[in-house]
Amino acid sequence: MAVVAFDDEDRVALVRQWRLPADAALLEIPAGGLDVADDGTKEDPDLAAPRELEEETGLRAGTWRKLGTFYTAPGFTDELMHLYLATDLTMVHADGRLAADEDEALILSWLPWREAVAAAESGVIRDAKSIVGLFWLARILDSRGR
Amino acid sequence: MAVVAFDDEDRVALVRQWRLPADAALLEIPAGGLDVADDGTKEDPDLAAPRELEEETGLRAGTWRKLGTFYTAPGFTDELMHLYLATDLTMVHADGRLAADEDEALILSWLPWREAVAAAESGVIRDAKSIVGLFWLARILDSRGR
Repeated sequence: MAVVAFDDEDRVALVRQWRLPADAALLEIPAGGLDVADDGTKEDPDLAAPRELEEETGLRAGTWRKLGTFYTAPGFTDELMHLYLATDLTMVHADGRLAADEDEALILSWLPWREAVAAAESGVIRDAKSIVGLFWLARILDSRGR
Repeated sequence: MAVVAFDDEDRVALVRQWRLPADAALLEIPAGGLDVADDGTKEDPDLAAPRELEEETGLRAGTWRKLGTFYTAPGFTDELMHLYLATDLTMVHADGRLAADEDEALILSWLPWREAVAAAESGVIRDAKSIVGLFWLARILDSRGR
């Protein structure tokens, strides 16, 4: 699943991480896989989303909204991406220190949402789920005249 | 690569095809892979896009614009999606018959662009490249006040 985390200062949370297939450090919205239980059952994405957001960014959200679910590349994989909008954000630690999974080694950065959308349009942000998430946020905010 | 084909009646061309990984027939924007030469060189996406559009829909475009390039799922594949906007469309055959690659067995349908975008938001259109393409088109048209 992937999370558009949008704060009260109209900024979006982004993480930069090394992506081996891309051979590059990509700037993306926070995202993660679903845990699979011993019996093969996949984790509920509604539960995975808050866990991953906190692991990757140290953030908790007071409000969650499911935006959509889509196939990343249906020609060759059944991977489904569950996309969420998370608002009313708070840092788990007041000092901004990450809570867990420090080995994920992600660097959190904040961009004003219009800049993040422009970064998607210009190719600076260049993975499908992040572009979908940022354009989706833009549609919501533009429709509110924000 | 993938193509947002937008006609003079403000409609978008969509194709429905069976996707084995999804175990479903998905409604998508026209798309295809890049041919790989014997020496491993990949086809130029700028050349592949018109070929695939014609193969899948029977359409030719008088005007091409590259919108962007993005990774579909950078966690596990290096697949890059090259996204184009194609306008000034004409059917290769006046009777609408497909020109080639009839074994691709795609069903072409046209949706007014606002309906196509709504279909992406509601989950009827549910693959990443199509959602990116339709939202991108919407950003262009909305900025023109269309």
